Amino acid sequence: MKFSVTILGSSSASPTTSRFQTAHVVNIHERFFLIDCGEGAQMQMMRNDINFARINHIFITHLHGDHIFGLYGLLSTLNLDNRRHELHIYGFNMLKYILNDFLKYFGNEFKYEIIFHAVNVRYHKIIYEDKDITVETIPLKHRVPCCGYLFREKIPELNIRKKMIERYNLTLAEIVKIKDGYDLMTEDGSIITNEELTYRPYTPRSYAFCSDTEYSKKVINITKDVDLLYHETTFAQNLLKMAKQTGHSTTVQAAEVAKEANVKKLIIGHFSSRYNDLDMLLHEARSVFPETYLAKENEVFEIELERFKE
Amino acid sequence: MKFSVTILGSSSASPTTSRFQTAHVVNIHERFFLIDCGEGAQMQMMRNDINFARINHIFITHLHGDHIFGLYGLLSTLNLDNRRHELHIYGFNMLKYILNDFLKYFGNEFKYEIIFHAVNVRYHKIIYEDKDITVETIPLKHRVPCCGYLFREKIPELNIRKKMIERYNLTLAEIVKIKDGYDLMTEDGSIITNEELTYRPYTPRSYAFCSDTEYSKKVINITKDVDLLYHETTFAQNLLKMAKQTGHSTTVQAAEVAKEANVKKLIIGHFSSRYNDLDMLLHEARSVFPETYLAKENEVFEIELERFKE
Repeated sequence: MKFSVTILGSSSASPTTSRFQTAHVVNIHERFFLIDCGEGAQMQMMRNDINFARINHIFITHLHGDHIFGLYGLLSTLNLDNRRHELHIYGFNMLKYILNDFLKYFGNEFKYEIIFHAVNVRYHKIIYEDKDITVETIPLKHRVPCCGYLFREKIPELNIRKKMIERYNLTLAEIVKIKDGYDLMTEDGSIITNEELTYRPYTPRSYAFCSDTEYSKKVINITKDVDLLYHETTFAQNLLKMAKQTGHSTTVQAAEVAKEANVKKLIIGHFSSRYNDLDMLLHEARSVFPETYLAKENEVFEIELERFKE
Repeated sequence: MKFSVTILGSSSASPTTSRFQTAHVVNIHERFFLIDCGEGAQMQMMRNDINFARINHIFITHLHGDHIFGLYGLLSTLNLDNRRHELHIYGFNMLKYILNDFLKYFGNEFKYEIIFHAVNVRYHKIIYEDKDITVETIPLKHRVPCCGYLFREKIPELNIRKKMIERYNLTLAEIVKIKDGYDLMTEDGSIITNEELTYRPYTPRSYAFCSDTEYSKKVINITKDVDLLYHETTFAQNLLKMAKQTGHSTTVQAAEVAKEANVKKLIIGHFSSRYNDLDMLLHEARSVFPETYLAKENEVFEIELERFKE
């Protein structure tokens, strides 16, 4: 029941000698989701032993090169790896045309299908759902159409406390009803509430990815109480004006979003290449939100499962 | 008077955790030429302290992704670096359309001009010339139109031996004539040959880049006697058949080209990602051509200047 985030790249517009451009891999129950795909993402995935065949969904936040130029190489390598199963790519509508142009020149021999899903970046909406998770868009404020993505485990099914099965000698039909949330009426007509009979086995976990964006109240509202928030921090606080001009955030702004949204943990990243010393950025953010951590290449952030006993 | 080659990437179709895709930087007299531009080339250039502003010419061998997917990021970074001067890109005609599509989506804010030069990959021809060097195409045999590039220093001007200036009390007019290759007629009517009067200060150096290609006689003819030959070696000798099928060369084939062309030194590269141990490839090539070296990321091959004394 893993839920982890691997940082493939922490740099912004330009890479540095040690920092790749934006890409994160989310592992939820051993299924892998790629968010953004900066240049070199495929190499970084190899370094982190991520099995390319298990990536079936790629979510792109916006169409700036530092978030997508790794797609070309990755898509080509998937073909060289003899991929046959579909790959789903989510992003702003124009990405469809960029991909089509790419496929026109380089996709003739592709043996797998790319299915593009246009995302309306202006609305907060569930855009992906399977039996375990949902993915929601988070509208962001950037120079071009841009949205983040919020990954949530679904609320797990109710478990029935074993001692209740024995105590009330529950039938299979009663168990099914109780698992659906119903109370139990005993033979003597008394009501046993569903809460007494059941428990949630664990708390569903959540990860919100927000890059690139100015400080935004909407982000705070949508990411309320998430376990892990990645919020871009292109600049230190003294470059607040430049952050605003370029549609980015500072350390303190990212930390304020985390604080106001009451998240458990904050990762900052998308650092301007002007910074060699990232500890200074970390220090600034921690002065507002102590549970802040730096995005670093090949670092894995685990969200622990909080299990409940009967 | 530097003449050196820096290896940015040594991998073929897929990168590995340690090997980037093809890209070499040629430094001739502190002017830099980029040949091919695999994914991650810009990061590798940074690691090798190559000043992006000094790259004015990029030569592309062919339009497979592992040779060009680094262009997108590099061209974007050049713009972020506030480049204002022209960038010249040489390659097969279709690259123009690929670049135009790229610029359509990502080039709106570019502040420098990209000048594309279509290369006829089927002919051996000088396609670039400046005061110091020429660059010739080398037609290659691959699955798609493909050519290598041969960089040659021009033959340096004749120097006049100082003692001859004194001995014959040469006038400025006579010196100009002699430097142009004329003999000298002395007052007593005897002829002093130009060879006695002058010397070449150094031997012009040369570097031939051949990727991707099958074994080719044409390559041997064109690269005759070059100082340094890079020849792709995607496969070990036991995969000769696969090499032929995919339009590539083996260790032994590359070494045979080097031997038959009588080059001074051979670099092999473009290694299939199946090989972890490259020493085996080196060993095979050296059994035919001892002066063989492995292309390794961030390795610099210097071609020493052979100066002649008066």
